[in-house]
Amino acid sequence: MSRTTFDEKIDVFQVIQKRQSVRKYEKGVQIPNEELEAILNAAAKAPSSWNLQHWRFLVITDEAKKKELLPIGYNQQQIVDCSAVIAVLGDVEADKEAESVYGEAVEKGLMPEKVKETLVGQIHGAYKNEGPFPRDEAVLNASLAAMQLMLAAKGKGYDTCPMGGFNRHAFVEAFKVPERFVPVMLLTLGKAQEEAHPSMRKPLSERVVYNSF
Amino acid sequence: MSRTTFDEKIDVFQVIQKRQSVRKYEKGVQIPNEELEAILNAAAKAPSSWNLQHWRFLVITDEAKKKELLPIGYNQQQIVDCSAVIAVLGDVEADKEAESVYGEAVEKGLMPEKVKETLVGQIHGAYKNEGPFPRDEAVLNASLAAMQLMLAAKGKGYDTCPMGGFNRHAFVEAFKVPERFVPVMLLTLGKAQEEAHPSMRKPLSERVVYNSF
Repeated sequence: MSRTTFDEKIDVFQVIQKRQSVRKYEKGVQIPNEELEAILNAAAKAPSSWNLQHWRFLVITDEAKKKELLPIGYNQQQIVDCSAVIAVLGDVEADKEAESVYGEAVEKGLMPEKVKETLVGQIHGAYKNEGPFPRDEAVLNASLAAMQLMLAAKGKGYDTCPMGGFNRHAFVEAFKVPERFVPVMLLTLGKAQEEAHPSMRKPLSERVVYNSF
Repeated sequence: MSRTTFDEKIDVFQVIQKRQSVRKYEKGVQIPNEELEAILNAAAKAPSSWNLQHWRFLVITDEAKKKELLPIGYNQQQIVDCSAVIAVLGDVEADKEAESVYGEAVEKGLMPEKVKETLVGQIHGAYKNEGPFPRDEAVLNASLAAMQLMLAAKGKGYDTCPMGGFNRHAFVEAFKVPERFVPVMLLTLGKAQEEAHPSMRKPLSERVVYNSF
């Protein structure tokens, strides 16, 4: 899939099929702001539990910052060669967004104040529970946005690679990530220098069960 | 976006933009097998850590099973009205797949046996760590596939709704979900009876940080 113009239609199934994790990028490629914003806006159109939009995108384009990230990401060259590293973070205190998300709905006359109050109370209640809930929600909803980000990037003719292998503790320190956010993944984004090898997938028979185990 | 034919091109950005969580479905719509498989195959094309493909899809189309699920999903009518409920599960013991995933690569001459052995050892090592890692990985990677599932469904002219609100304990019991899998979300899938209200999103300025906090 070659670089596409801003308005060209590009088939969703083709994008899904052609997206591969790319680890070799053309150096020095700057993604135009309007394209980067289109990609991030597409990512942020993902659904989320209670529409709390648990994702945050820390977009690292500064060369010095990428160099600082390099050892934190175990010296993977793609970190410095790509156009941007996007750290996808998840909000473990996303209930703090409830008032603002539903306040807007009330303002626009889409929801009565009383319904909002009940909903906001329920959300705070759910986040008071012990257990993995807040973290699960942070990881889940940030991942939905990350997937859309990768597809939108491909739709604009760029490639990505999701990276789970990095020193999370060092990352949080170096980039001053507030405690409220958990790093979910790093995504490199840029123009592929060479095509990735297509990777295999298990057949559906090993991934799908019908009606019950 | 009206129902599309099997081969029609449909723009990825349009799909991302138009996908909304739909809660009202036309009853009695059966999705042709080849379409359902195309949707599931697209979902399973998602990236995953070490390509372990942590997702499992429990596809519930049987009417009796959907009725059994109804109270477990707090009686949301969409469960019985939609064409299929797809429970997206995540594998918390995904390292058990490593041997098979990389064995295939060796068989096809894509990887030397020694590299495989090292890699499989590393993966088992990572899964021996205490802490949230195996569960995070299960939730993260299953969510990537879930997002592609929703977009692929939209690309085929169907709609979806991700549901986090269900009794997980009762679900695991009723559908005999092995301990190895954690329920990540239920997705309803079907033909929309009415369009969903577009939902608002926070502006990028509230979700994006550049270079460092």
